[in-house]
Amino acid sequence: MVIQLKINYPISKRKSNDKIINFGNRGMSLESDLNDTNTYYLEKDIAVIYKKPTPIGIVKTSGVKIIEAYFKQPSTTDYNGLYQGNYIDFEAKETASKTSFSLENIHKHQLKHMEKVINHGGIAFIIVRFTKLEKTFLLFYQDLLEYIESNKKKSISINYFMEKGYLLKYHLNPKIDYIEIVNKYGGLK
Amino acid sequence: MVIQLKINYPISKRKSNDKIINFGNRGMSLESDLNDTNTYYLEKDIAVIYKKPTPIGIVKTSGVKIIEAYFKQPSTTDYNGLYQGNYIDFEAKETASKTSFSLENIHKHQLKHMEKVINHGGIAFIIVRFTKLEKTFLLFYQDLLEYIESNKKKSISINYFMEKGYLLKYHLNPKIDYIEIVNKYGGLK
Repeated sequence: MVIQLKINYPISKRKSNDKIINFGNRGMSLESDLNDTNTYYLEKDIAVIYKKPTPIGIVKTSGVKIIEAYFKQPSTTDYNGLYQGNYIDFEAKETASKTSFSLENIHKHQLKHMEKVINHGGIAFIIVRFTKLEKTFLLFYQDLLEYIESNKKKSISINYFMEKGYLLKYHLNPKIDYIEIVNKYGGLK
Repeated sequence: MVIQLKINYPISKRKSNDKIINFGNRGMSLESDLNDTNTYYLEKDIAVIYKKPTPIGIVKTSGVKIIEAYFKQPSTTDYNGLYQGNYIDFEAKETASKTSFSLENIHKHQLKHMEKVINHGGIAFIIVRFTKLEKTFLLFYQDLLEYIESNKKKSISINYFMEKGYLLKYHLNPKIDYIEIVNKYGGLK
């Protein structure tokens, strides 16, 4: 069953052709979609962007086998790379909420990292999927920061994503064409 | 079979206070020196460069503990980041040889990755330490490629590093100031 929700868009001038396209992506995780997208970008020679491996602290090994290890908290965001000479950096998260995205999903050191990226001339953003709404947004770090600084709230309302973020339509290939948005609105050099 | 798990795992509270402080250079690995250097760059707000976590394929977990896992071959180079709006990408290797660096140390897909970085407007290089000579060189990818294309040899003579590479002097802080070389000879935008 695919649920298509009709949402009232407060500000959506640039989203007039905002059709819901759904190729039956239920069960596909955002991470999986982004990996497919990045593979597509690589193969088509559009961009060179990878997900970083999950940091793991190894305690004990036995030959080639790791027998005791723990997940560590990442120091940076999950994805980075290169597009047309521009350094790209982003974090991707899913939420089951239909109304807001909890800021607890983004660690403080990740925000600080994105801040540094911006200050050093890179492009930083978050990609957030509202799984139950089947909607995925890109929100540039500058707009994320503006929200955090001007609100004392612990979560970002979906309205803010609709207002300041960019809806990433679901395609067959590339699945989530975030580079299209970076290209148009990322402030490329 | 290696199963790729999603990242939504509880982060263990283990503190990795296994930082070895060593005031003599002996026994310090290139990786450790580069990590210290990158920390220095971060703290002084010079550059934002990190070592990527080692990719690990997880087979079995027990609670927060990973009880079976294996090292995987990296798809890219070990280090990447951002310096003055420029995307930086490199691989670092040590050799015990006093005369040459075996090209077997750099995987074909890593060379291909560096090629892509160059083509997309980034800066790519290798850093090689001849441990017994206590000499560390930076060799830009373009010069590495020129060597590979014009030689059928399976290793690069130290003479080539001295001729086309840049000797990285050892400092107290930053330990290996490779950004100085990138700044002068990297062809920054």
